[in-house]
Amino acid sequence: MTEASRSLATLLQPRSIAVIGASTRLESLGGKTFANLLAAGFTGHIHPVNPKAEVVQGVPAVADPRDLPDGIEQAVLIVPPEAVEPVLEVCGEKGVATAVIITAGFSETGEEGAERERRLLDVAERHGMRLLGPNCMGAVNTDPEVNLDTTFSPVPVIRGGVGLVSQSGALGVAILSQAEGLNLGFSSFISVGNMADIGIEDALGYWLEDERTRVVTMYLESFGDADAFARVAEPLARTRPVIVVKAGGTEAGARAASSHTGALATDERAFDALLRQCGILRAPTVQDMCFWAAAFERCPLPAGKRVAIVTNAGGPAIMAADACSRHGLELPGLSPATRQELAAFLPPAAALGNPVDMISSSGPEEYRRTVEIVAGDPEIDAVLVVNVTPPLGSTPEKVIEAIAGLEVARRTPVVAAVLTGDDFYPAAARIAGAPPIYRFPEPAVGALAALARYAERRRLEDVAFDTPAPDREAILARLPEPSASAGGLQSDLHLLDPAAAAEVLAAASIPVPEQSLAPTPEEAGAAAARIGGPVALKAVVPGLLHKADIGGVALSLQGSDETAAAARRMNEAVAAAGEDLAGFVVQEMVPGGIELIMSTRRDEQFGPLLLLGLGGFFTEALADVAVGRLPLSRSEAGRMLSSLAAWPVLAGTVRGAGVHLESLLDLIGALARLAEDIPELVEIELNPVLCSREPDRHRAVDAVLRVRPRP
Amino acid sequence: MTEASRSLATLLQPRSIAVIGASTRLESLGGKTFANLLAAGFTGHIHPVNPKAEVVQGVPAVADPRDLPDGIEQAVLIVPPEAVEPVLEVCGEKGVATAVIITAGFSETGEEGAERERRLLDVAERHGMRLLGPNCMGAVNTDPEVNLDTTFSPVPVIRGGVGLVSQSGALGVAILSQAEGLNLGFSSFISVGNMADIGIEDALGYWLEDERTRVVTMYLESFGDADAFARVAEPLARTRPVIVVKAGGTEAGARAASSHTGALATDERAFDALLRQCGILRAPTVQDMCFWAAAFERCPLPAGKRVAIVTNAGGPAIMAADACSRHGLELPGLSPATRQELAAFLPPAAALGNPVDMISSSGPEEYRRTVEIVAGDPEIDAVLVVNVTPPLGSTPEKVIEAIAGLEVARRTPVVAAVLTGDDFYPAAARIAGAPPIYRFPEPAVGALAALARYAERRRLEDVAFDTPAPDREAILARLPEPSASAGGLQSDLHLLDPAAAAEVLAAASIPVPEQSLAPTPEEAGAAAARIGGPVALKAVVPGLLHKADIGGVALSLQGSDETAAAARRMNEAVAAAGEDLAGFVVQEMVPGGIELIMSTRRDEQFGPLLLLGLGGFFTEALADVAVGRLPLSRSEAGRMLSSLAAWPVLAGTVRGAGVHLESLLDLIGALARLAEDIPELVEIELNPVLCSREPDRHRAVDAVLRVRPRP
Repeated sequence: MTEASRSLATLLQPRSIAVIGASTRLESLGGKTFANLLAAGFTGHIHPVNPKAEVVQGVPAVADPRDLPDGIEQAVLIVPPEAVEPVLEVCGEKGVATAVIITAGFSETGEEGAERERRLLDVAERHGMRLLGPNCMGAVNTDPEVNLDTTFSPVPVIRGGVGLVSQSGALGVAILSQAEGLNLGFSSFISVGNMADIGIEDALGYWLEDERTRVVTMYLESFGDADAFARVAEPLARTRPVIVVKAGGTEAGARAASSHTGALATDERAFDALLRQCGILRAPTVQDMCFWAAAFERCPLPAGKRVAIVTNAGGPAIMAADACSRHGLELPGLSPATRQELAAFLPPAAALGNPVDMISSSGPEEYRRTVEIVAGDPEIDAVLVVNVTPPLGSTPEKVIEAIAGLEVARRTPVVAAVLTGDDFYPAAARIAGAPPIYRFPEPAVGALAALARYAERRRLEDVAFDTPAPDREAILARLPEPSASAGGLQSDLHLLDPAAAAEVLAAASIPVPEQSLAPTPEEAGAAAARIGGPVALKAVVPGLLHKADIGGVALSLQGSDETAAAARRMNEAVAAAGEDLAGFVVQEMVPGGIELIMSTRRDEQFGPLLLLGLGGFFTEALADVAVGRLPLSRSEAGRMLSSLAAWPVLAGTVRGAGVHLESLLDLIGALARLAEDIPELVEIELNPVLCSREPDRHRAVDAVLRVRPRP
Repeated sequence: MTEASRSLATLLQPRSIAVIGASTRLESLGGKTFANLLAAGFTGHIHPVNPKAEVVQGVPAVADPRDLPDGIEQAVLIVPPEAVEPVLEVCGEKGVATAVIITAGFSETGEEGAERERRLLDVAERHGMRLLGPNCMGAVNTDPEVNLDTTFSPVPVIRGGVGLVSQSGALGVAILSQAEGLNLGFSSFISVGNMADIGIEDALGYWLEDERTRVVTMYLESFGDADAFARVAEPLARTRPVIVVKAGGTEAGARAASSHTGALATDERAFDALLRQCGILRAPTVQDMCFWAAAFERCPLPAGKRVAIVTNAGGPAIMAADACSRHGLELPGLSPATRQELAAFLPPAAALGNPVDMISSSGPEEYRRTVEIVAGDPEIDAVLVVNVTPPLGSTPEKVIEAIAGLEVARRTPVVAAVLTGDDFYPAAARIAGAPPIYRFPEPAVGALAALARYAERRRLEDVAFDTPAPDREAILARLPEPSASAGGLQSDLHLLDPAAAAEVLAAASIPVPEQSLAPTPEEAGAAAARIGGPVALKAVVPGLLHKADIGGVALSLQGSDETAAAARRMNEAVAAAGEDLAGFVVQEMVPGGIELIMSTRRDEQFGPLLLLGLGGFFTEALADVAVGRLPLSRSEAGRMLSSLAAWPVLAGTVRGAGVHLESLLDLIGALARLAEDIPELVEIELNPVLCSREPDRHRAVDAVLRVRPRP
């Protein structure tokens, strides 16, 4: 298939559509879908196919798809499951470019259905046809030159700038139905259903070229290939806001993690990393996604985070201020000039702080003038209008009319929270030039915060790591020889021995303590003398992760005698635990510091991932970790560090704490580079990394490296 | 004033009302308020007072309040600010029992207004009159025997079981207006305004006796006396759900904290502790409060946390499942009997797990039968119905009608999330017996979670601490003598010296390490020898909190020589830092364990507070703390511990961690008892408490005690 034929032109801009299964009964699927297509005012040719009716909803029908003319661009199939394949074959023979299969009963029902779905794909590929669905709810394009609607949405779709792609047709239609109260307008909607062929990335690729789509929204339940997604999502998010809701986020991942820290880089965290690195916003709920989309559709991006609140009542303004603070938005005081201008016409009892409380006697005119002045203040990046019924002798509709279409709102976002009765909202949202209107302050602030986050992200310029490439040959030489051992995944992986691990890390510029491998207690003692100062002694027990649990770690040993004696005791303890001791590692003691963990693993879906987190007991309990996808920029690694709850400890804003951050970023860069360049290292876990205040004094004190043997 | 006269009978059930300032202009405050009173169908006598009109909205008026008949029970004042005091005086003379002052311009405007407000209170007290307001929006009582409405709400208040008290009149009225979509019904509403007299506690006390009020809701901005609040709120919450929204929660407390851990027990945390200990639910937003109230008003309390989801579409059900998981609700599988019953009539493609996905072909009848069967399953405590448009050939209204008034919903809560167009909600909510209906799954689950939390709280039985009373005389003997030093707050407080602090703690059964006070390095060495084993050495520097910063702490010293040498170095270090060293504390080394902090302080508003938290660097960075008000039950202390993010570390569910919890609770009990019984100890900070896995081996290693000298 060529790139051109993979486009969605015949899905969203067809010049002719056959609706196979169009029905005369309006309450049936085939009836409602056909009625919606007629009601939308589709600008192309419509061909209903119905075996029993000569005319469907006033349009002449054919009885059999074989009777359709050649060259129809799109066919919508609403036929029984067993009829889908033969009908699709006919469509292919007729030269249909895109088939939309509304019919359900395929891969969503199990293996047998999946097999039937594969056969549909075979038919489509044989004919060079694109498929939407099966088990989907069609598509919408509100472009007046097309007016396409092949959904059975119960309410007409409002025209606007939002693109929506949904893995749940029902939820997509529910979003379209609920949009009325926000007057949220859509450019296009694609219900991808089972995604036998057309998927999320196709939709994103289409919008990348579609100027009518100024905001992109997605509802996801499952997720395919991160690289394919990122390739199109990242450029899309650079040109317009992209918002995602992903359901199933709390499902405990079924991953059989091979170590406890590995398990922290869950699919959810990896997915969040993917979105963050693509510059995509993740909304917690579908409702929030709609709230945010309404703001993005109607407002310019703010220059910063400084919000002014304009209100006629104190209580809701306090709630708005609380919400701003929770979202990291700022409420600066107004400039003296602005206060002076406001004082000239607001009632004397008005409060000219931020919030500006114009008090309850203020009406539409005061709102208009105040919003104009405040939004024009160079110290303010966005305005939240709060209005509570009453303004006596006026209505909230008049307040919205007064602030609708203000010139200043083209440069500074203005959103409104109006607290009044239910019937206000749909009508008010339709006032020309109205700001996005919310029922309470919190969602309005949430939307402003989304604007500010996206705008900030657009301004970011990332600095890359300048880590040199690790010496691949030197590292490969330390990896185990090809192994003839057969067996499952576990036995295919080798755990590197400590000496080899330390050499690999050192070759990759990851600082490790000075250390020696000693086969016997006597040699351990000699090594301690050689290293000098206090040493740590660790048992080498192949395959064992938690050697401290069986007495396999001793710290702060002084000199050769004490070290040799500890090694002899360790020998006995390890034997008593039924394990085989293969020798000792003698390591210089690293002075105590902040303990971090860092690890990498290769995920089938998300590719190589890097995890940073607080070490010690707290790794597991607090799960204070950040995950990033490789490759990683230095800036992104910095953002990961500062996203940790323990960040103040690292940054030194906590008394007595603080680590050398630039060295820490160097170390992260070296680890990232190692994991990227040596894919044979399928897992690297540095636990702990003892971090120092001094430059270049961080040390990866213990490391577990897992290797996939070279073939 | 007697207790009886302090009741709100004449506020909420007056037999006669004078509206002073009743106006013929409907768009004025006095006109709209009077119109609402008439429209409500008030069952008593109404007396408008208007200097210019003989008849106001059809009711004969008097020109002057002096012309009113004697013995009118309630007067509503909507007069210019300067007229309030003289009019109030007349009301008093006329024997009015309660005056409702709508007029603004008093304490909310500053000190001058506060002085005018105090004069109003004087007038009221002189005449034994109760005052609501000033700067309030009146009150509502929907009891058909009363039908009171002195607000200027733009929409009529729906009758029902929710009591609402609000410090913001505008917000209260906004809540009443927004209730339509939920068909949320109110028993009574009190806008307390500036609370010159009638306040929150009066409202709560009224509802304690009011059987029509089955759910209590509150919007607070400021907060008075915690004890007075708790005295009425705690018994109220034992009989019916009480929900609070408090605005201003993110305002940085202005408290000048005397130590960094003290600052963690902020007003917000103390307020949360007060609510938790009273059994009150705190809602994050006003909208959540309404959502929860609707569920409490219409549903029984669930027996547990096990939710079943019944849906006709997969996507929204996944969102509901996510939300359940986030709220700690469980989604157990259905029993085989239930599955069998469902299989008998649901389509073969239906999924009989949890969620039960009846698929899109299911309509009202399938909903009714499925909800009945699932709600009757003894393994299920609550049912969430999710409905997405379409059920083709039916409507969501019919689905709600089908599940309205089910017998089973009297025992098992049923709530619904319906995702459809805007116009559905107000009408559907009015269907008789309809469950609470939400627009999206998340608020529905939030409401179910609130039901489950409150029900769980009602089932709790608290175990008290059995800590013996500390030896008050022995402790008082160790506190400083009365001091003649004048000056500010700081100089009024004494920091106890380490030896006295240790003796006080020991006398209160708080375990401390063995220790000695040594005036000189030589005596420190001797003390180390006496204690035996490794010791810690700490400088005694009166008034200095962070002695480690200036080299005032040395650990793991062995024997008298090493200790004496360390003490000499410490002497120099402290002198170099410009501080005066008053001696040394020599202390047995306590083996490392989990570090906690515990502290108490006496708060003017909240009384004595106890704080628990994770120690070390992380105290400040992670703010992983729990705050409780004293007195504290042992059960409540256990709940505080388990609310910490570090709980898995304490409980030992993290590898290699775990502390002896019963001993830890004993220690917390001893600290709580000390703070309660010896109010002279205004602050106690144990930092760190080193916690052991062994019983009775926890140790308060360092302690700061602040004492208010005895007068």
